[in-house]
Amino acid sequence: MRTQVAIIGAGPAGLLLAHLLRRAGVEAVVIERRDREYVEGRVRAGVLEQVTVDLMNTLGLGERMRAEGLVHTGTNIASDGDLFRIDMSELTGGSTVMVYGQQEVMKDLFDAAEPRGVRIIFDAEDVALHDIDGSKPYVTWRKDGAEHRLDCDFIAGCDGYHGVSRATIPADVLKTFERVYPFGWLGVLADVPPCDHELIYSNHERGFALASMRSPTRSRYYIQCGLDERIEDWSDERFWDELCLRLGPEAGARVTRGASFEKSIAPLRSFVSEPMRHGRLFLAGDAAHIVPPTGAKGLNLAASDVIMLGEALTEHYLEGSNAGLDGYSARALARVWKAERFSWWFTSLTHRFPDRDGFDRKMQVAELAYMRGSRAAQVTLAENYVGLPLV
Amino acid sequence: MRTQVAIIGAGPAGLLLAHLLRRAGVEAVVIERRDREYVEGRVRAGVLEQVTVDLMNTLGLGERMRAEGLVHTGTNIASDGDLFRIDMSELTGGSTVMVYGQQEVMKDLFDAAEPRGVRIIFDAEDVALHDIDGSKPYVTWRKDGAEHRLDCDFIAGCDGYHGVSRATIPADVLKTFERVYPFGWLGVLADVPPCDHELIYSNHERGFALASMRSPTRSRYYIQCGLDERIEDWSDERFWDELCLRLGPEAGARVTRGASFEKSIAPLRSFVSEPMRHGRLFLAGDAAHIVPPTGAKGLNLAASDVIMLGEALTEHYLEGSNAGLDGYSARALARVWKAERFSWWFTSLTHRFPDRDGFDRKMQVAELAYMRGSRAAQVTLAENYVGLPLV
Repeated sequence: MRTQVAIIGAGPAGLLLAHLLRRAGVEAVVIERRDREYVEGRVRAGVLEQVTVDLMNTLGLGERMRAEGLVHTGTNIASDGDLFRIDMSELTGGSTVMVYGQQEVMKDLFDAAEPRGVRIIFDAEDVALHDIDGSKPYVTWRKDGAEHRLDCDFIAGCDGYHGVSRATIPADVLKTFERVYPFGWLGVLADVPPCDHELIYSNHERGFALASMRSPTRSRYYIQCGLDERIEDWSDERFWDELCLRLGPEAGARVTRGASFEKSIAPLRSFVSEPMRHGRLFLAGDAAHIVPPTGAKGLNLAASDVIMLGEALTEHYLEGSNAGLDGYSARALARVWKAERFSWWFTSLTHRFPDRDGFDRKMQVAELAYMRGSRAAQVTLAENYVGLPLV
Repeated sequence: MRTQVAIIGAGPAGLLLAHLLRRAGVEAVVIERRDREYVEGRVRAGVLEQVTVDLMNTLGLGERMRAEGLVHTGTNIASDGDLFRIDMSELTGGSTVMVYGQQEVMKDLFDAAEPRGVRIIFDAEDVALHDIDGSKPYVTWRKDGAEHRLDCDFIAGCDGYHGVSRATIPADVLKTFERVYPFGWLGVLADVPPCDHELIYSNHERGFALASMRSPTRSRYYIQCGLDERIEDWSDERFWDELCLRLGPEAGARVTRGASFEKSIAPLRSFVSEPMRHGRLFLAGDAAHIVPPTGAKGLNLAASDVIMLGEALTEHYLEGSNAGLDGYSARALARVWKAERFSWWFTSLTHRFPDRDGFDRKMQVAELAYMRGSRAAQVTLAENYVGLPLV
């Protein structure tokens, strides 16, 4: 089998790229280790930057998002229960974000794949990349007991942090940067109306909390927890009690309690691997970088990576220019590092660090007090939150 | 001897307060452990916020400052030698800072003391504060072999970090917050023209550097150094070489070298003691808080403290209201903590931390890159640098 671009992984990065290339007339095949149900079912991010919204619309896949997604013009910060609002739209000259779960994005991307001729091979076991340093790379895998091989010009590694793509690059050509945070997020999904029509990021003496939602009837709540906490120790009642305390009296009183149908603990990590290209392999999304979820940059970075990679590949095939491919890593990393900084900063500002002292806590409180009174500080939050421009 | 307000310490906080009270018709006596020559000779800060400039002008002591001080409308940031300018004036709607050394401020305050009837007792040994909890506090000291006593209504503790004022407050009523940085500043004064007409704050792989000045013919330069460094290991030549490297090729090439006439290493510390009032003792300036020198907030915080304390004492004596005195600590601390945050942040952004890893360095570089491209981020630096409003 032969194609122009082999895409490893059918997550948001891989499928967005596949749709982009299909639209541009570049051949691609997506190779995915799991099945559609598994990929689509993963509970992940839920806040789309304008860049990501624009991409869905450009692809002609934005109809359901525009109908069902929730446009947020602001977000809220609580400091020990004292709430203030960041009017993102007013502060950025009209930019907003869209609350639309990754699961919904994936459903739209999958539903449109077959009608548009986007080829996806599911259940591909033991995927391996070959000759990424040479001029004739190829991908092999096993499926239904048979060995398969896909020859290609380029490989797009969109298979996430644990995927085979980054692991195929010789370790000595990669520089990696990492920060593991000393806490996790305990997240809950429940079919109850959210406590606010917008998000609330709360810095509380007892730890961070986030009030979010998936729809007007489905709430998504998180609280910071220790990495050694066990899900079974967190009854719904204990979770709601702790959440309400951390959101403060005003927002806490508006929380509607109900049975949770998803409850899980996720660690927080910052990670970047440089460069994002090796030979004919190009990394995009989580394969190259991870952000902590504070500020919701993960899915959006995957989107901006594949916009840049899609442009570069299209330039190669349609205009015969390699400039985009040669510049891809530096261009993508410039935006990645700014989003990494924002996610690290927003995490540092809002979480309780067990290893830090009273001075650090005072710095958080002072920064939140400063932000409350400074339009410029609010703009810096807002412009990063809605997404820095693609350059 | 009796007065209304006993002021401990004839540094900037003590003398500014003495002049303010004198002007308002409130009696005060300043008690200073050292002599004028010692206090005036201390090499300290050199950048005055608008608040401090206004205070000098209000006191009618701004004439020489306006003639000899250098008004700066901007400041410069270098990231690994790559320079960009923060146009403070344009970004803040016209605010500027004034380069005018603390030594010059002290000279003006001392020169005006006697003509205006500001009473200063120098060389007061073994100063002690008594009955600060009661209604009749007094101060004792020894001078020329004799014991002295000053009865008063209030005591203003303006005697710095190591002074007796804060030490007199029972330890269990104070909360202290501290951060000691794992490096110092090696500072040099030399009678050579500065390399730039404005300051340059440089983040370099080898460590922080700052190009500053006292006048068009006197340069003030600093480089970050280890706390275990010895002055005698730093010849002028070694200093100039290291400075030029860290300022980068553009600014480094403009450095005029010359013999240094002052060279010293200072540690960096953040420190706050809460509250700033105990009974009839009110702390102001370094007695209550220390900032690292990055961003030049130390002298300026002393000025804003004494403006607030001067207002509060004047209100007490002229209007019979204690509202200002009762609110002093909270009001002063609100501004102090924001300045502490700014100084900590600016230090964290620009220095090399030996105990931190590559990820932290990338966060610095990403934040500087973001700041270079974001007007809002530049405004946050500028508005803090020129000084947040007194509220």
